[in-house]
Amino acid sequence: MVKCVVVGTVAFDSIKTPFGSVEKTLGGSATYASIAASLFSKPGIVSVVGKDFPEEGMKLLQGKGIDTKGIEKAEGKTFSWKGKYGLDINVAKTLQTDLNVLLKFQPKLQGEYKKAEFLLLGNIDPELQLKALEQMKKTKLAIADTMNYWIENKREKVLEVVEKADICLMNDAEARQLFKTPNLVEAAKEILKRNSDLAIIKKGEHGSLLCTELGCFVAPAYPLENVVDPTGCGDSFAGALIGFLAREGKVNEDLMRKAIIYGSVVASFNAEGMALERLKELGTDDINKRFNEFKEIVRF
Amino acid sequence: MVKCVVVGTVAFDSIKTPFGSVEKTLGGSATYASIAASLFSKPGIVSVVGKDFPEEGMKLLQGKGIDTKGIEKAEGKTFSWKGKYGLDINVAKTLQTDLNVLLKFQPKLQGEYKKAEFLLLGNIDPELQLKALEQMKKTKLAIADTMNYWIENKREKVLEVVEKADICLMNDAEARQLFKTPNLVEAAKEILKRNSDLAIIKKGEHGSLLCTELGCFVAPAYPLENVVDPTGCGDSFAGALIGFLAREGKVNEDLMRKAIIYGSVVASFNAEGMALERLKELGTDDINKRFNEFKEIVRF
Repeated sequence: MVKCVVVGTVAFDSIKTPFGSVEKTLGGSATYASIAASLFSKPGIVSVVGKDFPEEGMKLLQGKGIDTKGIEKAEGKTFSWKGKYGLDINVAKTLQTDLNVLLKFQPKLQGEYKKAEFLLLGNIDPELQLKALEQMKKTKLAIADTMNYWIENKREKVLEVVEKADICLMNDAEARQLFKTPNLVEAAKEILKRNSDLAIIKKGEHGSLLCTELGCFVAPAYPLENVVDPTGCGDSFAGALIGFLAREGKVNEDLMRKAIIYGSVVASFNAEGMALERLKELGTDDINKRFNEFKEIVRF
Repeated sequence: MVKCVVVGTVAFDSIKTPFGSVEKTLGGSATYASIAASLFSKPGIVSVVGKDFPEEGMKLLQGKGIDTKGIEKAEGKTFSWKGKYGLDINVAKTLQTDLNVLLKFQPKLQGEYKKAEFLLLGNIDPELQLKALEQMKKTKLAIADTMNYWIENKREKVLEVVEKADICLMNDAEARQLFKTPNLVEAAKEILKRNSDLAIIKKGEHGSLLCTELGCFVAPAYPLENVVDPTGCGDSFAGALIGFLAREGKVNEDLMRKAIIYGSVVASFNAEGMALERLKELGTDDINKRFNEFKEIVRF
């Protein structure tokens, strides 16, 4: 039984960082997010791939207990992305994007997927996010991820997502851009005004911020010395967060604080290897050990 | 009896932020730092002012229990700084700097000052910092603050300060610049290699990082919605830190974690008012209340 649904992309990624490079390897927001979610509960993916998508890609996902019924196989080629990172490894430079089958993608949620209580809308066109959200019957928590591209090109639709989803994840630069303020707490208050009980702003290597009407939780990032490849860190964060909450079966501020730390834990591991290298080998012991390290990191 | 010595500038500041402006008001690194330190123990200032420095400035400092014997009154005008902040209030733009009496300043530590166990070398020329440090007889902890200007112009001297002081405070951009790495944990390790047991890197609105050989402590910044004027926040942070440790009379990692939180508490209050407005009115109750809020901010 699928506990959480992840809508997003399944892609071929070509990545170059100062520490390595990979060509046409499995990637995409739904891939990273669902593998991260699978560490806590059973996710199902809603996405599309082309006829060129290899069986081993599906097997990798299924091997993680991920339900792949929702991955449509369409005529054409799989979405592909090519990017590189410089010495300041937090900044990705997109070299090429081939949307391919993504151009005609319309998320269709079927059967048990519609009844899942936890939904993650990965970083895709906000109009598609809204279409997916409408199909859900009984969500306890719908989280949407977004990016600067959509804020620049479909600002009103992103604001509609902020209003209709329970949480719209964005990073600090995106929050500043969307709400036209340099102050993150002010940006978080703008989110709270728009029908949200919780606002989460990701700050990359500086951790993340959770705000409610009552106050803020500031989560550190794990102090990593060796960031090998940050591709998919935002997706891993979101995936672990929804997966953990789906396992708990409910949402409150205390669980959300823990979920954010689990998200940070999984994202930090993800950054330690090229592409899915580290994420796909992660085990519960690794996660629990680093979760406890976070306790020590903030202790005073 | 002076418990900690603060070497730095006493100045006239003219500041403009989107929320207010002040002309020729009391400022300078030693002013902010010693007022912050005075909230915890008795500081003495080593600095220089001109003949134009008003008696009320001295009285303000003395009213805080600060020893001002070490403030030399030289021929000429007091150092003055003029700056403004834009909408992204974390970035100061210097409009004018008149060094005046600072041009010939040579720090002289006399009497009980030489025997103080806690020393803060505010952000001045690293050569002067080294000269002040040499005069101390029994420091348990010498902290030096620095800035990008010195890293660009006197890199070798800044590295000598890193080696000779116990802690050289810098912000994230400065640490990246000094050690030529984008990774802050790597920069912290470079500091630890240079004869330091503790490395502290300030991250402005993202808090700060304390690293030892054994691991890292990540301190959040207080999530402020209304930053009115960040002038002196770095100095207030450093001042509260040295003041708290001087009160405790010893240094270890646990006390340093607490000291960093007290530093963050006092700096966050400082940002809430123009110039010294808020800092000079601060009381122990305000500080303890916000210290406890920090516990809640990082709880998970």
